[in-house]
Amino acid sequence: MHNHTVNIALPDGTIKSFAKGVTSLEIAQSISERLSQQILASLVNGEVWDITRPITEDAAVKLLTWQDEDGKKAFWHSSAHLMAEALESLYPGIKLGIGPAIANGFYYDIDFGDYDFDATHLPRIEEKMLELARQNNLYQGIVVNKPAAISFFQKKGDPYKVELLEGLQDGSITFYKHGNFTDLCRGPHIPHTGFIKAVKLLNISGAYWRGNEKNKQLTRIYGITFPQQKELKAYLELLEEAQKRNHQKIGKELKLFTFSEKVGIGLPLWLPRGTVLREQLEQFLRRAQVKAGYQPVVTPHIGHKELYMTSGHYDKYGEDSFQPIRTPHEGEEFFLKPMNCPHHCEIYKHEPRSYRDLPVRLAEFGTVYRYEQHGELHGLVRTRGFTQDDAHIFCRNDQVREEFAKVIDLVTYVFSALGFSDYTARLSFRDPEQLHKYIGDQEDWDKAEEAIEEVAKLRKLNTTKALGEAAFYGPKLDFMVKDALGRNWQLGTVQLDYQLPVRFDLSYTGADNKKHRPVMIHRAPFGSLERFIAILLEHTAGKLPLWLAPEQVAILPISEKFAAYAEEVNQNLRNKDIRCFIDHRDEKIGKKIREAELSKIPYMFIIGEKEQLERTVSVRKQGAGDQGSFPIDKLVQEIVEDIS
Amino acid sequence: MHNHTVNIALPDGTIKSFAKGVTSLEIAQSISERLSQQILASLVNGEVWDITRPITEDAAVKLLTWQDEDGKKAFWHSSAHLMAEALESLYPGIKLGIGPAIANGFYYDIDFGDYDFDATHLPRIEEKMLELARQNNLYQGIVVNKPAAISFFQKKGDPYKVELLEGLQDGSITFYKHGNFTDLCRGPHIPHTGFIKAVKLLNISGAYWRGNEKNKQLTRIYGITFPQQKELKAYLELLEEAQKRNHQKIGKELKLFTFSEKVGIGLPLWLPRGTVLREQLEQFLRRAQVKAGYQPVVTPHIGHKELYMTSGHYDKYGEDSFQPIRTPHEGEEFFLKPMNCPHHCEIYKHEPRSYRDLPVRLAEFGTVYRYEQHGELHGLVRTRGFTQDDAHIFCRNDQVREEFAKVIDLVTYVFSALGFSDYTARLSFRDPEQLHKYIGDQEDWDKAEEAIEEVAKLRKLNTTKALGEAAFYGPKLDFMVKDALGRNWQLGTVQLDYQLPVRFDLSYTGADNKKHRPVMIHRAPFGSLERFIAILLEHTAGKLPLWLAPEQVAILPISEKFAAYAEEVNQNLRNKDIRCFIDHRDEKIGKKIREAELSKIPYMFIIGEKEQLERTVSVRKQGAGDQGSFPIDKLVQEIVEDIS
Repeated sequence: MHNHTVNIALPDGTIKSFAKGVTSLEIAQSISERLSQQILASLVNGEVWDITRPITEDAAVKLLTWQDEDGKKAFWHSSAHLMAEALESLYPGIKLGIGPAIANGFYYDIDFGDYDFDATHLPRIEEKMLELARQNNLYQGIVVNKPAAISFFQKKGDPYKVELLEGLQDGSITFYKHGNFTDLCRGPHIPHTGFIKAVKLLNISGAYWRGNEKNKQLTRIYGITFPQQKELKAYLELLEEAQKRNHQKIGKELKLFTFSEKVGIGLPLWLPRGTVLREQLEQFLRRAQVKAGYQPVVTPHIGHKELYMTSGHYDKYGEDSFQPIRTPHEGEEFFLKPMNCPHHCEIYKHEPRSYRDLPVRLAEFGTVYRYEQHGELHGLVRTRGFTQDDAHIFCRNDQVREEFAKVIDLVTYVFSALGFSDYTARLSFRDPEQLHKYIGDQEDWDKAEEAIEEVAKLRKLNTTKALGEAAFYGPKLDFMVKDALGRNWQLGTVQLDYQLPVRFDLSYTGADNKKHRPVMIHRAPFGSLERFIAILLEHTAGKLPLWLAPEQVAILPISEKFAAYAEEVNQNLRNKDIRCFIDHRDEKIGKKIREAELSKIPYMFIIGEKEQLERTVSVRKQGAGDQGSFPIDKLVQEIVEDIS
Repeated sequence: MHNHTVNIALPDGTIKSFAKGVTSLEIAQSISERLSQQILASLVNGEVWDITRPITEDAAVKLLTWQDEDGKKAFWHSSAHLMAEALESLYPGIKLGIGPAIANGFYYDIDFGDYDFDATHLPRIEEKMLELARQNNLYQGIVVNKPAAISFFQKKGDPYKVELLEGLQDGSITFYKHGNFTDLCRGPHIPHTGFIKAVKLLNISGAYWRGNEKNKQLTRIYGITFPQQKELKAYLELLEEAQKRNHQKIGKELKLFTFSEKVGIGLPLWLPRGTVLREQLEQFLRRAQVKAGYQPVVTPHIGHKELYMTSGHYDKYGEDSFQPIRTPHEGEEFFLKPMNCPHHCEIYKHEPRSYRDLPVRLAEFGTVYRYEQHGELHGLVRTRGFTQDDAHIFCRNDQVREEFAKVIDLVTYVFSALGFSDYTARLSFRDPEQLHKYIGDQEDWDKAEEAIEEVAKLRKLNTTKALGEAAFYGPKLDFMVKDALGRNWQLGTVQLDYQLPVRFDLSYTGADNKKHRPVMIHRAPFGSLERFIAILLEHTAGKLPLWLAPEQVAILPISEKFAAYAEEVNQNLRNKDIRCFIDHRDEKIGKKIREAELSKIPYMFIIGEKEQLERTVSVRKQGAGDQGSFPIDKLVQEIVEDIS
């Protein structure tokens, strides 16, 4: 009897029995009609499926809606097909490249042939897409063999698809068809086009076929779609706000950093104000780390080939890395360091260590260099050089729990000091069914994972557990931080490592007088100082907290007559290490105030006849306007207290 | 008549007439008999000559004695010949490589063939050298043609000399002969071997013929000689003291830095204590610089080829540089930055500048990388990577005087704060007879040199003027600092630069609303942080001033019983940012004190029964022993005051 039924395990733990061949859509219907109208795809034994695909064996099933990343992905992938259909109907004879879903929406690469195409055409395509969507056409998977597939696209006149097909292994190929459009595609897709209720095509750009600049440049059209119009509206508002807060725009306005093609793309030059911001962040973390028992070290920005052969990174230096630096005589090979851990292992190793010396916590603001292609660079978020607030903790297995707890305390202290209050912790653990994949002692892993989970609970972190997401060399805890626009950023990784201590043959002498292997923890609260500053600037829209502001007070004399008193105020502030400057220019006070506001300077001290006479200053606060007049000593004290 | 006389200009300004063909020795005799017994060589129109060489034209002559570098050089070069003579007499049939004078003494590279040779043989050679020296053999120059020269060494059986000769251009060759020894040599030499009264052969090492590891390894014998025995004695004492103060030895004892072959030769790894020292020095200078109106910047450690084509350094990247770093896709070429100025020029250039914005003073602790061969590396003094306390001042020509004055004030402030009180300033100016060699406006040069000289006088610097020593792009002021052993170190260079502003097309808008060219000043008080720390460690023998000491107080409880009180003292100190640690080990107090003394920790706080009861600590000062017991608050206050 049971041959004709399948057991379906649902995420809430219940197991239901269905007739063999049941679809995810039918499972959804068995739960609620409403749910059945919302599901976009289905996760069957860890694989994303069409909801109409029959399930013929016992399976764990998660029904995916718009709330799930994989649900969104199926939705956007289906939207790419819809856009291609609209394009073929508007521009017959165009040739199609590829059209995947991306983090926010989708794109399709098109060879428009002789058509003149530009961004002004986008609204027309949006309209066509909505018109086609309303036909509620089903997305249907079709299995064909390779020769038939090639023949189909040859007849249709899609040479890029033919080229893709020729690169595939022999065997069965899947097409997806909806309405008048058929594409080479592995799926999965949403049930029908009717789900797509709101469309926005965002922009177009050039893209070489297969990313190779020797190939023809196609036109890439980026778009995004939603199941409801109001969601599109909210998204566009967010986009607008994000553009206002764009860190590159703020960086320019506040004179924090710049780029120079001569120096090299993706290599930021930190201007004086940006350098102060960096140094303040470093100083803040340095102090917190000294208190937490970290020891600072400094290591070079290059490392000999030998170092990376030992660490295992050497094998990975290839097509996607900066190439080696050779010496003219000795034939040595050096690499720009892409991380600090191998250098820190050598520092650990330079003297014998005893169990009493552990944990050894080595910290460095280490600037590392990693090759990225031009197209992948993005302001301070993705650069070719960045400074990690890196540290490596070498400890005994019995110290992992306490060290993890201390790292979590440090990271959450840093977040709260910088105004990030909304975050979750993601625990990346082993796949319990593939324990052989992981190096190190399984008992150590058990204890470490248990310790991490317990500590996270003890610290009341909001956690999600990702089984199978651990690196092969150790479990990990990542912080996902939500910014003022509700966007999630991964910050503050804590990674356990059983591998490097083996590769570098690190040891300590135990109480038993025998050699033991320490375990290593990699951690970086900011991650990259550059990327963190980008996030901070977007989170605060450039209105940095007083202690971080590169200039804390702008002293604005109404005219030259008050220069001497302005200088006195200036000295008064500087004596207390308050960062300030005098705007000496022969400009109207209104203009001076406006510019100080635009530069997001927390305090403006305005000085005129009355202030000089009374030995006060008239105070404006950033974004909060006039605060009245105050004696200078009182203000200085207030600001000093505010800063600390 | 005057055809038979020559006019000789002496350094004191007098001009004397002599018969044509007069020798330097005769000139010396005409001055004083004593001088004639001391002169070793002679500087004739800027060229070093034998003192017996006839002078047949009017000439500027400086008689060189042991007090002159070039006099010493001739002395040591002649000593190398003397050693070779001694070696040939003791080891017949050996083959000779080269034997030059070096900064302190000389060496000769020898192929000992089948002889077993080691350092125990050195005293025997010294004895032989002294024996031969007492023969007062004359050093005589002989001119031969190339075939005769080759034939001479072929017969003698000196294949290395033959190889050298074959590499020379055709024409006349000089030999120098003394006693039983003849060498291929350009000279000059001292008059006779009798000047050499004291000999010390220092050590031996292997050296590949012509520095090429594919060639045979010869034995290099290093030695030094003196005109008086007491000078050798003083030198050996200095050497012994220098070895005690060797910064590599101190660096190891104090756990300041280490090297790892895996990371790469010549690339220091800064250990926690050394990092604190670095950071304190940086912090000290950073503060002084902020007060002096410098603005900090941060730039990457690599630069695109374009940058160095603009700066003009690209042409110099060749045989003696780290080779370029290529990108895998775009075919870009980057270089490890060997200096920070090109990056700073790009920062200057990123926005329009007005005459009111100048001077712009950009400061960076910039780590740079320069290739050195293995044999040239020396501890922290000569590395492949080092951090410059670099700054570039972009100013108007009319600001050069004031900026130079400010830089001199900053540099001398730094020197005095670090205990260097004995220094001179060397002014490198144009050669007045070759003004065409220098770029830039000659009137600007006139004013700049005048300004530098005036400022140096105003600041009461002890100066020497080196005409013709200016770089072609600008005059320079170097500080030569004397350390506790009387050795001179070049520190604190201030270099004017008329060239880079042209190459980078830098400009500012003048009061006349026209574009003008700024001038640039490069300056670095420490020069290289690494080298400066080496000098500081040797100068202080590791006994750093309190404010720089990586650990300021060692808290030494007599036994475990006092752990709690020790911790209280520890917290008390830490709250005031005093760097301290507790020596918790179960060791005798005597051993703890001894080790703290060896680690050069300025204060030791000893804690026992009495101290705990009275809430005091018993204080020992580094090198000064027991100071008695003091209440902890009073001590903390005293130390805090001492530090600031």
